[in-house]
Amino acid sequence: MSALPERQPRPERASRYDIAALKEDLAGIALIDETQIVRKRSRDFFWYSPILNQQLADKSADIIATPRDEAEVVRIAAACARRRIPLTVRAAGTGNYGQAVPLEGGVLLDITGLTGIERQEPGIARIAAGARMLDVDIALRETGFEQRMHPSTKRSATVGGFVAGGSGGVGSVTYGGLREPGNILAARIVTVEEEPRIIELRDDAAQKVNRAYGTTGIITALEMPLAPAWPWIDVIVAFDSYMDAFETGYEVALADGIVKKLVTPISSVITPYFGALKAHCPEGKSILICMIAEGSLGPFKAIVGKRGAVTYEAPSEEGPGTVPLYEYTWNHTTLQWLKSDRSITYLQCLFPHDRLVESARETIAAFGDELLPHHEFIRFGGKVTASALPILRYSTPERLNAVIAQHEASGVFIANPHVVSLEEGSRHKRADADQLGFKSEVDPQGLLNPGKMASFVPAGQAK
Amino acid sequence: MSALPERQPRPERASRYDIAALKEDLAGIALIDETQIVRKRSRDFFWYSPILNQQLADKSADIIATPRDEAEVVRIAAACARRRIPLTVRAAGTGNYGQAVPLEGGVLLDITGLTGIERQEPGIARIAAGARMLDVDIALRETGFEQRMHPSTKRSATVGGFVAGGSGGVGSVTYGGLREPGNILAARIVTVEEEPRIIELRDDAAQKVNRAYGTTGIITALEMPLAPAWPWIDVIVAFDSYMDAFETGYEVALADGIVKKLVTPISSVITPYFGALKAHCPEGKSILICMIAEGSLGPFKAIVGKRGAVTYEAPSEEGPGTVPLYEYTWNHTTLQWLKSDRSITYLQCLFPHDRLVESARETIAAFGDELLPHHEFIRFGGKVTASALPILRYSTPERLNAVIAQHEASGVFIANPHVVSLEEGSRHKRADADQLGFKSEVDPQGLLNPGKMASFVPAGQAK
Repeated sequence: MSALPERQPRPERASRYDIAALKEDLAGIALIDETQIVRKRSRDFFWYSPILNQQLADKSADIIATPRDEAEVVRIAAACARRRIPLTVRAAGTGNYGQAVPLEGGVLLDITGLTGIERQEPGIARIAAGARMLDVDIALRETGFEQRMHPSTKRSATVGGFVAGGSGGVGSVTYGGLREPGNILAARIVTVEEEPRIIELRDDAAQKVNRAYGTTGIITALEMPLAPAWPWIDVIVAFDSYMDAFETGYEVALADGIVKKLVTPISSVITPYFGALKAHCPEGKSILICMIAEGSLGPFKAIVGKRGAVTYEAPSEEGPGTVPLYEYTWNHTTLQWLKSDRSITYLQCLFPHDRLVESARETIAAFGDELLPHHEFIRFGGKVTASALPILRYSTPERLNAVIAQHEASGVFIANPHVVSLEEGSRHKRADADQLGFKSEVDPQGLLNPGKMASFVPAGQAK
Repeated sequence: MSALPERQPRPERASRYDIAALKEDLAGIALIDETQIVRKRSRDFFWYSPILNQQLADKSADIIATPRDEAEVVRIAAACARRRIPLTVRAAGTGNYGQAVPLEGGVLLDITGLTGIERQEPGIARIAAGARMLDVDIALRETGFEQRMHPSTKRSATVGGFVAGGSGGVGSVTYGGLREPGNILAARIVTVEEEPRIIELRDDAAQKVNRAYGTTGIITALEMPLAPAWPWIDVIVAFDSYMDAFETGYEVALADGIVKKLVTPISSVITPYFGALKAHCPEGKSILICMIAEGSLGPFKAIVGKRGAVTYEAPSEEGPGTVPLYEYTWNHTTLQWLKSDRSITYLQCLFPHDRLVESARETIAAFGDELLPHHEFIRFGGKVTASALPILRYSTPERLNAVIAQHEASGVFIANPHVVSLEEGSRHKRADADQLGFKSEVDPQGLLNPGKMASFVPAGQAK
């Protein structure tokens, strides 16, 4: 990943919490309180947003706790509850909305020490929340399986972080997002109470931790459904126009007989920022990036060959020293551009499934060179549609909000990635009712990642 | 399968072809010319239709040829071409439209001697056309794979017969039908010419034999895509109303995170005809029959439990001495009823995906007790929808046609199963243009299953 923007060192600041006493409570648990390290790890990739980059620049935890196991997590949760100290869970910190940034200081709970696959049965793995998704897939593949979906940050991201802050990714063109029934089978959480409980959330109930930024309990393990580990082939196809790439991608996404993991059209304006991949992106051509099961390559090529030309084809790789093809898709597309030009930012869109092509075409026509398209075909509620993280040439917050409003007016849902709260960032501008109610059970004092579920009010407190 | 209706023996009839000379040509190839056997094997399950049962009662081949390998198929094709003798390919004869019934006598080519899996690679198997689908799955499962879809007649049906006369079945709720790109990877055919050619049809071209009733070449092998062989669980869920079963089934079909192979709501009026299964079908309750991967049972039950009650749950079985649960679905539902009541028949419907629930409800309301509903959720063109083979209380051909017309007027496609030609039986009432053109290349004299592709006219002949 690219380096973080440089910042001037800031003066030390006294904490409003009794951190010294907390340290005594947590004797034996590895803690980090070096200011520079704490500040650095209190950040995530929110700097993709110029707005969040200003808002969150000074936010930091007071101390980092790095538990080795769930028992240590329980001790930390108990101590924080007793001393009324906020607790923000953090793993790889690959999020883009400040999910893991502590807004009110306190403890940063680094769960990357909780690793490994606890149990596996046909089609199911129970995985420690801090396990790195790439490590999990490497282990699973020996049994013929892999995770159904992963973010483009798979080489750093953890399973727990993906569930807490993700939503979907590579694989969602087949399985939909994490919100679809069956895509999170169960979650184990630790509550933040003076006597923490360990709760198993199964099926529908597991959705209470999905994309809640760690506000609804500390996730320690997840039971996730698996997919067959097909031999995936990375393919790039070049097209004369973006809509040719888009419409062909849509046809591939709709082809239920073609086994696929990724279908991503990308505008010809974006590919010049693609570093090593440029060799396979002819100038002026828009491309379609796909991951296709080897056995489906024949029918796949029959479809893409009608309008496009294959420029790259090789088995998918994600081992050391390689840059996986999926690291040019989803929000990695934005990162590829940001490597050489910090003036842009992005949106998060969900297009209507019942007028998908028209809707994509309208949006492209409406914003011209201000908004540069790449889409992600996904399933959503059982229907094929597209999400998108288009690159926006940024000018002002007012213009950004106008662009968002214009999308929404034309029927494109926006999950605003330039706000910190779950409510503002959701498609419906409110907290999930189940999650909000559940929080009062598992975090009655509102200590978990405070400010993210902004509409939560601890019992007995007026807002 | 149930016994065929009894028929009186008919007098022998001289053939219009030089069968004696043909026998000499085919010396060394196993032939059968005992009239009773030839007549019996010239039939299929067309008797589900009272109309076809009249039309096809007297149709028979003159002789059966049972080749052991493709080389013998080539000899038979050459001899028929030379002597202008019709040639109708037949396998298990499980079709319902007289697909395998020779309308103009001649040779019945029994391809069930061509068996075995020729080759397997990840996700792909090349299978001899006469291989029984159950045998193929038994062999494949040792490698962790299975066929993506099969008809409810899987225990008798062959791969070649399924492709030539099928369209989809158990598994199509996930993969769509055989028409979807990627669901038939390649087909090898023998042409019917004096010097037959062997042609490999790949990808799009393989569609030239899909549901062509063997009119576009003699299929000898098929390259078929495979699916992971999940541990399937058969489940029956009971509901107070048919629409509860239907809407719940639709929700399951749309749930991309739930791995499934069969989702079939069946009316409470039908289940009393379900023999041994009745014990799990509470009186007055409509049911939902499903095959669900073991790992997806949790989220599946979370959905069906909202309105239904599970009455049966056990691992899928299809070995000797068992009646697989899928033998109560698709057109086996009709057969279950016919076992005790021959007065009914059925339709073949495809419902519109964009108003599926309304459309199902309208049809049920329009016909009341005359048309008894069961649906099959499938994917079609990338969208979840339902096909159906509803049971029709039969009165007259005129009424049957009126019921069909009323469906079509309300936007439900009908593939009429009471006609013999491909054209009349198709949703669009015409032959597939590619198939029609291809036939003139591979069967220029129109000897293959004559009368089925009715719009084909051999070169130089006026129709």
